[in-house]
Amino acid sequence: MAALTLTDLFAVPALDRSLAPALQQALDGKAKPPGALGRIEELALTLGLIQRRLKPIMERPVLLVFAGDHGLTRSGVAAFPSGVTVAMVDALLTGKASANAFARVVGAEVRVIDAGVAADLSDRVGLIQAKVASGTQDASLEPAMTPAQAEAALLAGARVAQGAIADGADLIALGEMGIGNSASAALLMHRLASEPLDACVGQGAGHSAEGMARKRAVLAQAAARSDVTAPFEVLTQFGGYEIAMMAGALLAAARAGVPVLVDGFIGTAAVLLAVRLAPAARDYCLFAHASAEAGHRLMLDAMNARPLLELDMRLGEGTGALLAVPLVKAACALLSEVAELTDVLEAAW
Amino acid sequence: MAALTLTDLFAVPALDRSLAPALQQALDGKAKPPGALGRIEELALTLGLIQRRLKPIMERPVLLVFAGDHGLTRSGVAAFPSGVTVAMVDALLTGKASANAFARVVGAEVRVIDAGVAADLSDRVGLIQAKVASGTQDASLEPAMTPAQAEAALLAGARVAQGAIADGADLIALGEMGIGNSASAALLMHRLASEPLDACVGQGAGHSAEGMARKRAVLAQAAARSDVTAPFEVLTQFGGYEIAMMAGALLAAARAGVPVLVDGFIGTAAVLLAVRLAPAARDYCLFAHASAEAGHRLMLDAMNARPLLELDMRLGEGTGALLAVPLVKAACALLSEVAELTDVLEAAW
Repeated sequence: MAALTLTDLFAVPALDRSLAPALQQALDGKAKPPGALGRIEELALTLGLIQRRLKPIMERPVLLVFAGDHGLTRSGVAAFPSGVTVAMVDALLTGKASANAFARVVGAEVRVIDAGVAADLSDRVGLIQAKVASGTQDASLEPAMTPAQAEAALLAGARVAQGAIADGADLIALGEMGIGNSASAALLMHRLASEPLDACVGQGAGHSAEGMARKRAVLAQAAARSDVTAPFEVLTQFGGYEIAMMAGALLAAARAGVPVLVDGFIGTAAVLLAVRLAPAARDYCLFAHASAEAGHRLMLDAMNARPLLELDMRLGEGTGALLAVPLVKAACALLSEVAELTDVLEAAW
Repeated sequence: MAALTLTDLFAVPALDRSLAPALQQALDGKAKPPGALGRIEELALTLGLIQRRLKPIMERPVLLVFAGDHGLTRSGVAAFPSGVTVAMVDALLTGKASANAFARVVGAEVRVIDAGVAADLSDRVGLIQAKVASGTQDASLEPAMTPAQAEAALLAGARVAQGAIADGADLIALGEMGIGNSASAALLMHRLASEPLDACVGQGAGHSAEGMARKRAVLAQAAARSDVTAPFEVLTQFGGYEIAMMAGALLAAARAGVPVLVDGFIGTAAVLLAVRLAPAARDYCLFAHASAEAGHRLMLDAMNARPLLELDMRLGEGTGALLAVPLVKAACALLSEVAELTDVLEAAW
């Protein structure tokens, strides 16, 4: 594979909409009242455009779970210690996490990536080793990463997606694991969606009132430290590695014409970052669900995104993205397998 | 199988909630923040209660598609002719309808039942023959069916569900096909949910403004003909056979401790009928989706039901119910396959 540069990665082509009329005609001609399958029809149209096929295919969905730690946890933004990131990476690798269970239900492969876990995981079987650093720096005190680290993380995420696509993935679902990453995502949202910080901060994996107050105070301190709004600089200031890699994975998938299923609050922050770096990437995204995390809805609005599911979930790991996989498969099946109305009526009379 | 009576069928036992504390403890102990999987956790609890198991199982979902015709179509309540019912039954039997495509995606079996199609379908291979009559009478002029026909339809629906359960079905999804049945369902809703008729009438498979006006006028005429509100009498007055059979199927499944996935407007009208006949049946229902059909939300509210999906769908056939099957499987997998938090943390430290 030729060495990818950020310039390459940000050169996402605009979605080719030339098949839209033919896809709409195909949908309207199916054996059902026009429009009666609602959002499944919209999804079918989008998939056809992204894949440039009248009969889109979805046979090999792959969930990429990027794991990273956050220096912000040292200032107390999270209710759980960083060590839980390692524990959950091991659970993911051994098939015992919620994402693994859901992936088995929907027929998706799970790949787990060390994007920047603050522990030596070099002995873990099956883990994709892409660590940029052992966690970010504490963004309340200093930049989360250097520009070189941010670039490395974006490109590493892209390579992981390219690898999955080379192996046949026709849908990339983005998941993450990282104690403290809802704090990092809140800072990204604050700067990239231009929302007041308070509207971006939620309870993450859970907080007492006291914990929430601390999280808000630490993030206010971080935000006060730097006024950057340009996307690459926002990433270097506020992190994290798993978020950067999800953004890179999206950009690589978009460049390859592969649709990307977006999970919850953290994943959407990564998508917002990617879209600010390369606006055309937006059209390759399928937004899976509205998280219960405060701020997610506003962040979706910032990208004019209407998620498919709303199940009061706020776990991450890609669990929300996985539950939308059958909807994507149904959309493909509608175009590929359902009879045309004219054929059905002719056969009957 | 001993002959079932309506008295038997209406004797649905109250849901046994004794396992609720143990199920909640199991959910809270999984490797995730308590409650972070939102409605999937609620679903897991409900499934555990219905199946009376701490690890509910869902391996063989079966969609029952009941087909029937409606005398009301002779007065012009539908935009499509009754013959479309036959055409779609044939599409369903040959695997070419939307419900077949979706069933393949989610791993469900489809069984198609002639509940009361206005055509001779005795030669159709694979069709479950349960026809009570060749369509209902025109409810705008006379009762849709006799009390004996209503009883026969309820019991036939029960037998179909019992047959599926005897074959191993551990989830029954209810679907229907019947030109004109949103008109019949609107009348049932009007009487059983005590809502003004206008709030119950929607566009069904599609209508012009003129068509909608005619549908409203015909249904007003039907409603004016009889003021019954008792559920069995409402069924005999306003039909239809597929609705009666779905109600009977729900009651039989509830008696057998098998959960029932409820589809859209017509299916929910059948559930409302069943719940008015045997209130305990409500707790065995999983409401799959909010249909785009006007009135569906109000009817769900009448049963305090919050559907899982909202995808602007209004097709029927059980398509909405099918798309919720993976959510039910995910709920089972959460209880059966996901590690406990204590085990995950012990393994890591």
